[in-house]
Amino acid sequence: MASNPNPFREIGPTTYLCPIPSVLVGCADPENGGKPNLITIAWTGVVCSKPPMLSISVRKSRFSHELISKTGEFTVNLIGQELCEAMDYCGVKSGRDVDKFAEMKLTAIPAPGLETAPAVAEAPAFLSCKVKQVIELGSHDLFLAEIVQVSVADRYFREDGSIDEEAMNLVSYVHGKYRALSDVMGFFGYAVASPEAKKRRGLKEGK
Amino acid sequence: MASNPNPFREIGPTTYLCPIPSVLVGCADPENGGKPNLITIAWTGVVCSKPPMLSISVRKSRFSHELISKTGEFTVNLIGQELCEAMDYCGVKSGRDVDKFAEMKLTAIPAPGLETAPAVAEAPAFLSCKVKQVIELGSHDLFLAEIVQVSVADRYFREDGSIDEEAMNLVSYVHGKYRALSDVMGFFGYAVASPEAKKRRGLKEGK
Repeated sequence: MASNPNPFREIGPTTYLCPIPSVLVGCADPENGGKPNLITIAWTGVVCSKPPMLSISVRKSRFSHELISKTGEFTVNLIGQELCEAMDYCGVKSGRDVDKFAEMKLTAIPAPGLETAPAVAEAPAFLSCKVKQVIELGSHDLFLAEIVQVSVADRYFREDGSIDEEAMNLVSYVHGKYRALSDVMGFFGYAVASPEAKKRRGLKEGK
Repeated sequence: MASNPNPFREIGPTTYLCPIPSVLVGCADPENGGKPNLITIAWTGVVCSKPPMLSISVRKSRFSHELISKTGEFTVNLIGQELCEAMDYCGVKSGRDVDKFAEMKLTAIPAPGLETAPAVAEAPAFLSCKVKQVIELGSHDLFLAEIVQVSVADRYFREDGSIDEEAMNLVSYVHGKYRALSDVMGFFGYAVASPEAKKRRGLKEGK
């Protein structure tokens, strides 16, 4: 390997992966008439394409850990700028103390494919997830879940049936800060695409 | 639960989580003098805080799957806009056919804490990772790895020792498109922070 042309500083072992998602996870309390709860999760990611699966990591001490463990279900609600403050609130409060849906004026709705876990009606889209496996890792337990259905708000569909994801104004998470998304830099495969294909896909000149 | 005030359309079970990271994963071929290779990965996420861990999911058919399985090591290189096209290229080509470092004029450097897996010298930051567990999920195998060191390029440190992550111009991935990051919408806890704290942390009025 070459010697290092760019000096780096070691900052120690830390969860420095970024940008990452930040989502609202919905779950229900079976001991309390299926009362809906929310938890903010940034420790999440896609883990498999077929079957479609994602993971969320939750501390054992969290109220939602108990609810998801009991019901085996949760929803992942994508978050746009309009819901960013509500998401942040749900990350610092506990469902043991407050009704997060009520406090944030959010609406709990049934999630297709699930028995109990609620979705957030105001979210641009949500994923219905069923837990397949739980792995203890240390501070967090990893819930591996199958995505059994995806629901996208009507208002984001174009006339041709495609989805306008830019209009969702999705929020990303970078080391403690919520960041808005901006320009499209390229599409998967653009590095080897023809100039015609790039133009057809709407990439600006020079990209 | 309330009836649904906003209509949704079900689009079927799919990996709709977004925005997600897109990173270059570095690994080495032990059968070929430790020759460095790269693979583009969007199926990644943080899975644990203590110990700091992340996951990557890789298809069994990929060359990098073989290399990571043999060596038990990889690096996760964060990607700014300058490296976006190189990252895309590494996602559509195989290390069995091309030398991705050479083709993309990238420099392989040793990663602190690892024996063989190379880092990308041009990346703004990279994480040194050791595989702890591999779980077969279907199309992809999930590699759960401990983050043993994090290296950040010198040029992103401010005089006070803090890191200017906005200057990294990091790229996010949303359903096949690479997206630039934009404004800071808030910081963790801003929903319950005082106006003074918001001002001190540099949040604009009204957020």
